[in-house]
Amino acid sequence: MTQPQAAALDSNGATAASAVGASILPERVDVRFEPAGRQFRVPAGVMLFDAASWNGIAIDSTCGGHGTCKKCKVKILEGAAPVTSLDARAISGEDLRQGWRLACRVALTESLLVEVPPLLTRPKAATVGVGRRVILRPAVQKRFVEVAEPTLADQRSDIERVLDAVDDLELSVDLGAIRSVGRALRLSDYKVTAVIVDDVLIDVEVGDTTDSMFGIAFDLGTTTVVATLLDLTTGAPAAVRSMLNRQQPFGADVISRISAIMMDPSGAALDRLSALARETLNTLAEEVCQEAGVDPRSVYEVAVAGNATMSHIVLGIDPEPLGVAPFIMASRSFPEVLASEIDIALHPRARAVIFPAFGAYVGGDITAGLVASGMDRDSRVRLFIDIGTNCEIVLGNSDRLIATAAPAGPAFEGASIKCGMRAAAGAIEVVKLSPQGVRLGVIEDAPPDGICGSGLVDVVAELVRVGLLDHSGRFVSDQDAKEIAPELADRLTNLGAERVFVLYWRAAKGDVEDSIFISQRDVRELQFAKAAIATGWSILFEEAGMKPSEVSQVLLAGSFGSYLSPASAVKLGLVPKIPVLRIVSAGNVAGEGAKMALLSSRERAAAMALLEEVEYLELSDRSDFNDRFVDQLGFVQ
Amino acid sequence: MTQPQAAALDSNGATAASAVGASILPERVDVRFEPAGRQFRVPAGVMLFDAASWNGIAIDSTCGGHGTCKKCKVKILEGAAPVTSLDARAISGEDLRQGWRLACRVALTESLLVEVPPLLTRPKAATVGVGRRVILRPAVQKRFVEVAEPTLADQRSDIERVLDAVDDLELSVDLGAIRSVGRALRLSDYKVTAVIVDDVLIDVEVGDTTDSMFGIAFDLGTTTVVATLLDLTTGAPAAVRSMLNRQQPFGADVISRISAIMMDPSGAALDRLSALARETLNTLAEEVCQEAGVDPRSVYEVAVAGNATMSHIVLGIDPEPLGVAPFIMASRSFPEVLASEIDIALHPRARAVIFPAFGAYVGGDITAGLVASGMDRDSRVRLFIDIGTNCEIVLGNSDRLIATAAPAGPAFEGASIKCGMRAAAGAIEVVKLSPQGVRLGVIEDAPPDGICGSGLVDVVAELVRVGLLDHSGRFVSDQDAKEIAPELADRLTNLGAERVFVLYWRAAKGDVEDSIFISQRDVRELQFAKAAIATGWSILFEEAGMKPSEVSQVLLAGSFGSYLSPASAVKLGLVPKIPVLRIVSAGNVAGEGAKMALLSSRERAAAMALLEEVEYLELSDRSDFNDRFVDQLGFVQ
Repeated sequence: MTQPQAAALDSNGATAASAVGASILPERVDVRFEPAGRQFRVPAGVMLFDAASWNGIAIDSTCGGHGTCKKCKVKILEGAAPVTSLDARAISGEDLRQGWRLACRVALTESLLVEVPPLLTRPKAATVGVGRRVILRPAVQKRFVEVAEPTLADQRSDIERVLDAVDDLELSVDLGAIRSVGRALRLSDYKVTAVIVDDVLIDVEVGDTTDSMFGIAFDLGTTTVVATLLDLTTGAPAAVRSMLNRQQPFGADVISRISAIMMDPSGAALDRLSALARETLNTLAEEVCQEAGVDPRSVYEVAVAGNATMSHIVLGIDPEPLGVAPFIMASRSFPEVLASEIDIALHPRARAVIFPAFGAYVGGDITAGLVASGMDRDSRVRLFIDIGTNCEIVLGNSDRLIATAAPAGPAFEGASIKCGMRAAAGAIEVVKLSPQGVRLGVIEDAPPDGICGSGLVDVVAELVRVGLLDHSGRFVSDQDAKEIAPELADRLTNLGAERVFVLYWRAAKGDVEDSIFISQRDVRELQFAKAAIATGWSILFEEAGMKPSEVSQVLLAGSFGSYLSPASAVKLGLVPKIPVLRIVSAGNVAGEGAKMALLSSRERAAAMALLEEVEYLELSDRSDFNDRFVDQLGFVQ
Repeated sequence: MTQPQAAALDSNGATAASAVGASILPERVDVRFEPAGRQFRVPAGVMLFDAASWNGIAIDSTCGGHGTCKKCKVKILEGAAPVTSLDARAISGEDLRQGWRLACRVALTESLLVEVPPLLTRPKAATVGVGRRVILRPAVQKRFVEVAEPTLADQRSDIERVLDAVDDLELSVDLGAIRSVGRALRLSDYKVTAVIVDDVLIDVEVGDTTDSMFGIAFDLGTTTVVATLLDLTTGAPAAVRSMLNRQQPFGADVISRISAIMMDPSGAALDRLSALARETLNTLAEEVCQEAGVDPRSVYEVAVAGNATMSHIVLGIDPEPLGVAPFIMASRSFPEVLASEIDIALHPRARAVIFPAFGAYVGGDITAGLVASGMDRDSRVRLFIDIGTNCEIVLGNSDRLIATAAPAGPAFEGASIKCGMRAAAGAIEVVKLSPQGVRLGVIEDAPPDGICGSGLVDVVAELVRVGLLDHSGRFVSDQDAKEIAPELADRLTNLGAERVFVLYWRAAKGDVEDSIFISQRDVRELQFAKAAIATGWSILFEEAGMKPSEVSQVLLAGSFGSYLSPASAVKLGLVPKIPVLRIVSAGNVAGEGAKMALLSSRERAAAMALLEEVEYLELSDRSDFNDRFVDQLGFVQ
């Protein structure tokens, strides 16, 4: 079929065909867009339309890359782009010879130089994630159409009437839409709004409802769950709410939740935990809709970013094999389900997208985080660290990404720390030691009530800095303390047989029992955690053949990461020793990734593509783990 | 991408590309298969694999035409078949140049001569429908696989393990399969059976269950519902049951059911009628499984052939617009649903396929009947008539098919006939008049209890033949009767003011009140019915530019058609005047079509394709209907 257009493309065509024939695709290709003059490296096989979309280059389209609207024409100036049957139908022979193609049909098998014509319609965009500009192409679309009233001479079915009016899309039809179409047409004098998710017509609504179109992004954490209601017509958040995951009574971490399920062969515990996760999501959904005054039936899609265990449980999949070696997921990706199937009461045919996971301990929250940070599309080498009981680490750039999970233990959640607490009001999150004594930063400026993870990192880093903790992590003797830091020495004392450093005298000075302190055992917990994390990224650096000095940015993800002081993180060895300015808190990147998936179906495709692009490295399999772990235990001043 | 193979195909490629480019596809193309030496005419655009499959030409395939197994290689000897990207991956450059292609990727845009290589595996086939030989390619497939136990070095997810073992298919995965895979693998020592419907993995079962795979074909009639349990491994029926549609209390015909729904704006009547249809199907499903000793969980698919009203109601779609002009369907085709969504308790992810409909009064039962009769693939001109309250008529052959619906009224159901009854035990179904008197054929040889439709046709045809009914359909005078047929004259009498002819003296001879008779008004009912039907087919003949003498076969479909005497049908003018041997009773073709859809996904594709191929002609829109109707009222001796 391509023969008539072959003249201009012979050599290219040959190259691509032989590459495909031999199944030897280059792993990465470069694509340069003119007149923008911007060039990107993308995985081979990615569609040109997606590569553009992911990098903020807007190409005209109404179908969002499904090959139906035939509006995404671009001109290939250099490189191979075989003519597809769709191209042959959509583009004239002369234009095909000149290199015009539908961007959504060009699979990038080699590097290309592409000319993007000026836009016919200015696409909306929003800034989401780690400063990423996302072109709004939600999977949810609405179209207001006026159709002809049926007659004996025009007996098209009700659905055909609506589909014919949306002829730039090739839609399949949900039974629910067939159930509602007849009434909607006849109640509205044949003026209706087609509601489309991806390429499915899910509903036909009475009149023009195009201005009411929402989605909810969920960050389904083991501890905290956050919901953001997004206005899909503008990309703006309409309401945000968070609450504790109602699974809390089953334990603080994923292992305790999996254990509860393992202990109950009847399956009731799985059902219960699944119901609690769903209740949490549904309660938040209700709350954000109420807060924004939005009818839940106008929410047509939700995206859920959670770790592998949470994703399994919320879908009713037994997570037991995740909890024991060799740590096997039932599936890395999950089919789209209806929100109603996971008991979230929104539009009855609202879709729920669950982020795919790389491994049992590098879950959908991390996939979402990578989408939010765009690590796979950036040539700069970056290190992504999500610190928690389980610490997920990803290293690399658009050329290569490697991920691993390090078992940091519960130190950062405050759970195993004597005076530990979650990062809530009253938690000490910042600690500075100086000749003037101890300065504390407390969340919400409340009276101090405990130490959260970032406070713990701060105080240990400060104690190492002033010398009250030695390199091995041991508190110095009282005598040494008086010499090293006389103004702090009275805070270094004993509780029973254990050395402690008091941060805050809650009752009388000297009343250690009732004070907020950090104990020698707490320091050890933190040491183990930071050693596990540092072992993780040091192995990744070695595998990637990279050096920490090459890292242009360290992204600290998750709520813990947002509170952590970059200086303390470096001091402690949690992150590589690089200039503090290169260490940035990326915030709730999982939630941001979920938002992006709602705002752009191309970003969602990117999340799926990541599954193929990120190499997962299992640490528990490595014989050198323990040696390296011991190497990383100490503190360096 | 096709350039390296272009040499041998230049002209072909060019032809196809320009044809596609201009969107001027020929309406029908011829395809000839060698070495079978058989040639068929098929609609343009049909895939070569389907064209072969529909005509009983077997081509190797394990994926059934989904483009994943790459086994359906054929050699194009003459004609154009552009190289697709899949061809380029599956077939060597040399073979491509010689014309080898994947049959499932060749869209027939012009006539082809094709060489089919000898089969590697002999496909199973079954004879179904109107003598059609169907190659068994059910949408349901099972694959027994043994997969490697996971290790830290092989952390593929459970689902990936199974998918990797079925690598000739590209499957999407149902959430239910993800839920069951972990347990199935670990209970079975990693020996499991993948259950696949179309290209979806719907379950993973413990051990080898490949010999247990069933489907149920439903003929969902307004009056009677028939279920056939099919063994999909052999194509053989395992059990058949029928029962009255439980919607009966709402009225005998579709109009009374629609009326009940129209009268109840609360929607409760629709819900109730929908529930009754579903109950009927579920009860039959239970019964056939029990009769055959089959676990309902081993039934993975059902196909439902019903008229448009039944199809709408069973899916919970309001049928109201079907009942009033301009007779509009909500949709002509229906999405696949789960059998559980229409309350049939089989495998929890069993699929339900509802046949598409051409028009409000040419429904899925007719689509199924056309599939069963293969009218769209036969060069002989045939006339398909399904006689009932609503009479569906289709005329044509593989070149063109036209359909219409004629409002025959309830005469054939016996409902409006004074001594009428359904075709059940005791119904007079055959009538012969002779000098010896009246000979009756009664269903199940029971004492006569009434007249069913075929008996009515017989007696009227006989009365016309012997001359007791004149050409206008009026009973002759007593005096004329004595002259014409003295031995029958005492049966022609009066009941009140109305002339009647007695078929059976139930009580004493002469006790007309208690006899089984046919009245003048009954004759008029039948006249109106036959006139409507004859008007229907005569208009179709005119539209098609055909003559009745060209018809090589009249197929009488439905349960009424099976009882009808061809001679009486001709005599009465129900069917065109052609030799009686060309008139065949096709039996329950709707049920046969439903069976075929289960046995072959290609036949199901054919049913969908029919929607595009059959022209629907609305009679109520025609100004010439009444004139023609009057012309057809009389009887011709």
